[in-house]
Amino acid sequence: MSRFFCVIPVADAVDEVLRIAPPPARETVAVESAFGRILSDEVIADSDIPGFDRSVVDGYAVRAADTAGAGDAIPALLTCTRRITMGQQDATTSISPGTCAYIPTGGVLPAGADAVVMVEYTEEAGETVLLKKPAAYGENVLLRDEDFKKGETVFSAGHRLSPQDAGVLAACGYAMVTVARKPVVGIISTGNELVPATVVPVPGQVRDANAPMLAAYLADYGCIPRLYGIVRDEKEAFEAVLAKAVPECDVVLLSGGSSKDDRDMTAGTIAAMGTVLVHGIGIAPGKPTIVGQIQEKPVFGLPGHPASAFVVLIAIVRPLLDRMLGVSQPFQRTNRATLSVNIPSQRGREEYVRVRLEGGVATPLFGKSGLLNTLVRSSGLVRIPAGAEGLEQGSEVEVILW
Amino acid sequence: MSRFFCVIPVADAVDEVLRIAPPPARETVAVESAFGRILSDEVIADSDIPGFDRSVVDGYAVRAADTAGAGDAIPALLTCTRRITMGQQDATTSISPGTCAYIPTGGVLPAGADAVVMVEYTEEAGETVLLKKPAAYGENVLLRDEDFKKGETVFSAGHRLSPQDAGVLAACGYAMVTVARKPVVGIISTGNELVPATVVPVPGQVRDANAPMLAAYLADYGCIPRLYGIVRDEKEAFEAVLAKAVPECDVVLLSGGSSKDDRDMTAGTIAAMGTVLVHGIGIAPGKPTIVGQIQEKPVFGLPGHPASAFVVLIAIVRPLLDRMLGVSQPFQRTNRATLSVNIPSQRGREEYVRVRLEGGVATPLFGKSGLLNTLVRSSGLVRIPAGAEGLEQGSEVEVILW
Repeated sequence: MSRFFCVIPVADAVDEVLRIAPPPARETVAVESAFGRILSDEVIADSDIPGFDRSVVDGYAVRAADTAGAGDAIPALLTCTRRITMGQQDATTSISPGTCAYIPTGGVLPAGADAVVMVEYTEEAGETVLLKKPAAYGENVLLRDEDFKKGETVFSAGHRLSPQDAGVLAACGYAMVTVARKPVVGIISTGNELVPATVVPVPGQVRDANAPMLAAYLADYGCIPRLYGIVRDEKEAFEAVLAKAVPECDVVLLSGGSSKDDRDMTAGTIAAMGTVLVHGIGIAPGKPTIVGQIQEKPVFGLPGHPASAFVVLIAIVRPLLDRMLGVSQPFQRTNRATLSVNIPSQRGREEYVRVRLEGGVATPLFGKSGLLNTLVRSSGLVRIPAGAEGLEQGSEVEVILW
Repeated sequence: MSRFFCVIPVADAVDEVLRIAPPPARETVAVESAFGRILSDEVIADSDIPGFDRSVVDGYAVRAADTAGAGDAIPALLTCTRRITMGQQDATTSISPGTCAYIPTGGVLPAGADAVVMVEYTEEAGETVLLKKPAAYGENVLLRDEDFKKGETVFSAGHRLSPQDAGVLAACGYAMVTVARKPVVGIISTGNELVPATVVPVPGQVRDANAPMLAAYLADYGCIPRLYGIVRDEKEAFEAVLAKAVPECDVVLLSGGSSKDDRDMTAGTIAAMGTVLVHGIGIAPGKPTIVGQIQEKPVFGLPGHPASAFVVLIAIVRPLLDRMLGVSQPFQRTNRATLSVNIPSQRGREEYVRVRLEGGVATPLFGKSGLLNTLVRSSGLVRIPAGAEGLEQGSEVEVILW
């Protein structure tokens, strides 16, 4: 391994990553637990929705022409011939001029009727109904197929399902839906200095923060994280855990290796068991990132600092996950904000600066990259493109929210 | 039941809801699966983090004074006396003037040293190291307790945990964490017109979209939804399902009942089995909402239209869930946007308008409240306060994102 690695631009690293992305796999899940999942196939309305002209209020189904000029002083007088029952199509003759029918919200508009007058504007007097407001043609009626037409594409493949989409899927006849299978992502923590959360560290030791952070992020992003614990910086230990993790996972992340020796060990082991494709990316923080492949599976060597690992996760690993999930549009919650101060940046590398967002103003939290507290205090990241020398105070930025 | 119910302001309805909120319960979960959960107790750093002065780069630990004036032309020359090993405190004597030690990223700064020069600016010549850049006091060093001090409050009770918080919890010694127990929310669909997703509706029938939508939303919000299926609009059926659901759940939502008869049935049944506290709220859509209590459990009658049910969920039910979860700050993803057109509104009721958000511009999607497709096409809601007569084109709004 060379001491100084070869740094390539973020876009090239992402291209490499996408080239080795395993194809999306699929599974079928219940609609009510499908939110956040990615549709494998497009969703087509299996019938007109609604399947009939439907009242959207409680009131009287009328011929609009019969209500022309109606008002408080001179109401229209119609004979109520029947009451529509919920859930059933009225089988009797059509509404003829001078008549109307009581209809509940959601009831089937009877033949002959073309509008509904809300019950609030009416009064019953025996069989006669006084209508104190005229109805326009189509008023308070949801037309057959006004929501979705039979055969219409409701969602495209690659769409990420929101909670309200679950309702729409049910309306379209889906109790189950085919979505991308969740990628299984192995997480291996490396470093002789690492101890688990349950151990009180002695000087020289630090607790492993990266593994739980990565696991939580990946679970939130629609993956199944699999933790392989802490591995000592020894070639045999690296090889053993990779030999176990690679066949069990779709992707493997090696986390830690903040020192050059660790990185060399990671790169050397990946090279011995497969191929190193990228060693060094023009990104800050996150430069010493490794991308490789073992047995066709993508393997990443992430930087050891939690904040750096997080940036690489977002900028480099996420495009891979999106490809594996068949995502049509990358999913990223962002918020517009105004920058409170200048942020200088070094041209030639893509930089991600942690910012705190308050009242539409983004304030950078400068600090050493090893700090966890800036991760906690910040709301997200502002990206500075490789071609820019920084961002100016007062400029509008997109904050990538945590 | 009176035909026209008594409408109360949103704030009063929320007060009623908060008054009957069951107290938060708690459970202990693994840190890596705790994201999105609400902390029951504050989190305190159990030790200084880091527990020692730590190098944040690979390089040479030096006395800063020894590097004064160093440059490419006249490097500082120091004798490298040793190499620091990861994970261990160096037990040898301190760095004396004129000497330095190789230190990897994360290594313990040896006694006597007060800065680290990055390896990129150095050259080894036998035991002598050439330093081509001066180091300022403290440069490239993360001080003991610089991240968190022992005894410091890291997170307050009521804090919603993000993925990166999982890493911080681990660093603070937490493998498990106590969080609010997920409220169990029962969902009962009512309406003679409703059929499940698997049935092809005949005219008069519609598929139940609300139940899967509510279930997905609640699961996403940190609750456990429990579906009780579709119940016919008959008093006995209502009573039977409520008698089953109330003891099994913390909160019960009756969904459907879009017609006056249905609402009366819902209110009548809640009144017979417990108390009706609210019947009618000054909110649009969502006016015919019912809030009651049976056996100390909150019971809601939600409007039948999916979009209306969603608005009531956000404006009225969510404050209850937040209280039950012990949330310190209501959780709502919002995005600032500029309004593309005027939105008129009726003073005296709080209105929620669906909008599509594109490039920082929010465009209202006006449409009949029964439509599902506006839910799909919209990005979220804009709230118009009860005291306003609308919002003007070009004004800045907060979009409550789905």
